[in-house]
Amino acid sequence: MKEHLTCPTCGNVITRYRNPFPTVDIIIRDDTHGVVLIERRNEPLGWALPGGFVDYGETLEAAAVREAREETGLELVDLRQFHAYSDPARDPRQHNISMVFTARGSGSPRAGDDAGKARWFPLDELPSPLCFDHARILDDYRKGVISDQ
Amino acid sequence: MKEHLTCPTCGNVITRYRNPFPTVDIIIRDDTHGVVLIERRNEPLGWALPGGFVDYGETLEAAAVREAREETGLELVDLRQFHAYSDPARDPRQHNISMVFTARGSGSPRAGDDAGKARWFPLDELPSPLCFDHARILDDYRKGVISDQ
Repeated sequence: MKEHLTCPTCGNVITRYRNPFPTVDIIIRDDTHGVVLIERRNEPLGWALPGGFVDYGETLEAAAVREAREETGLELVDLRQFHAYSDPARDPRQHNISMVFTARGSGSPRAGDDAGKARWFPLDELPSPLCFDHARILDDYRKGVISDQ
Repeated sequence: MKEHLTCPTCGNVITRYRNPFPTVDIIIRDDTHGVVLIERRNEPLGWALPGGFVDYGETLEAAAVREAREETGLELVDLRQFHAYSDPARDPRQHNISMVFTARGSGSPRAGDDAGKARWFPLDELPSPLCFDHARILDDYRKGVISDQ
């Protein structure tokens, strides 16, 4: 698919290939406390897994560590790839592909950056609805299986 | 990181956020024949796993099925996510993040599209060097473990 950019100076249209956007989300889990969710300050508002966009030149793993630190104040331990979610409808803003990680977090969650709040939720007492496809991701995680996409 | 585009009409510079590019690669494996590699027609030349760019609006899984069909003529069966590779230096052209899949292939490989040749290689008789980080990916696959990134 191509995208069309309009030059703000002369109004000429520049045509380029359009690609999905790589993002990361992190399931920070703890046998005692459950998982860490953040309350988003930006649209779409609501509770979500911590995460965000991968920078050009940054690995997925580095993006996960950075986003977790920025949004929850936690340092990640035992970071592992869980599954990638890429349904074009999973994010209402644009086609964002998320690599979801699991990790343990060192420290106590405190909100920062794009997050209004950050706190633990037991896996069987999650807020509803969650933003994006995060309810489904956590459902896959709870079940230990990946549902068909 | 930001990128700077120059308008071809007026020469004005447009500044935008730059993101890594999502791609897929597929380890098509068979207990008898090994894995399918393709000989690339475009730079960088050499043997590589079949794969390519994910289109905007396309899932990772659909991109894997499409690229395997275009480059090898094979229909994929039992497609599964293996691991994502995101080192910015893994592709000399630009920062491409690859979701690597495993699958079995239905049919006989025949080259098409960007591939000059497509054929089976036993896992212990792979050509060397392979393009990109594909030797490392296949090494991880053979060992059944993921090395640190």
